Amino acid sequence: MTDMTNNPMETLLDLRRSIDNFDAALIHILAERFRCTQAVGKLKAEFDMPAADPGREQRQVERLRKLAEEASLDSDFAEAFLNFIIKEVIRHHEAIKHEAKGS
Amino acid sequence: MTDMTNNPMETLLDLRRSIDNFDAALIHILAERFRCTQAVGKLKAEFDMPAADPGREQRQVERLRKLAEEASLDSDFAEAFLNFIIKEVIRHHEAIKHEAKGS
Repeated sequence: MTDMTNNPMETLLDLRRSIDNFDAALIHILAERFRCTQAVGKLKAEFDMPAADPGREQRQVERLRKLAEEASLDSDFAEAFLNFIIKEVIRHHEAIKHEAKGS
Repeated sequence: MTDMTNNPMETLLDLRRSIDNFDAALIHILAERFRCTQAVGKLKAEFDMPAADPGREQRQVERLRKLAEEASLDSDFAEAFLNFIIKEVIRHHEAIKHEAKGS
């Protein structure tokens, strides 16, 4: 990253380049994470395993809050972020269930 | 990642290990992304640059939707994800502004 001694517009553009790179990384990691949760959804549907696992979810929240703190990220934000993703996962799992019922 | 020929509980645990690794990666990239947006906030406050840039935001949305499609990720989810992060960025920027006013 650039130091702040350059002209401010240059510094801004440089920071934005980093932000764009991080966003691309986030999107690709998220895509791979959803591939995993889709596989979990199919597995649970196939073997009649319970869809929800509150213990697992609680451990995920605690772990992410701790990781966030270590990385100087707001741990409440980290928890909200996980919930945001989990909501989408549940939407996917419901779609898998409907597909399974339809077939 | 494991194939599905193992016993389902082993497969589930294996998928969860991947999910946990991806979550750790997401948290650390998010932390670094916020370091960049914090720097942007300070820069804009220092040089009296406008806080919002609707053109930039529109370009970010379009780019992320395209990246998401290429990665087989729901592009509406990618846009919602970006908005979720931007909301937090705005919260940070407002805090920076208040700090600057207070000092």
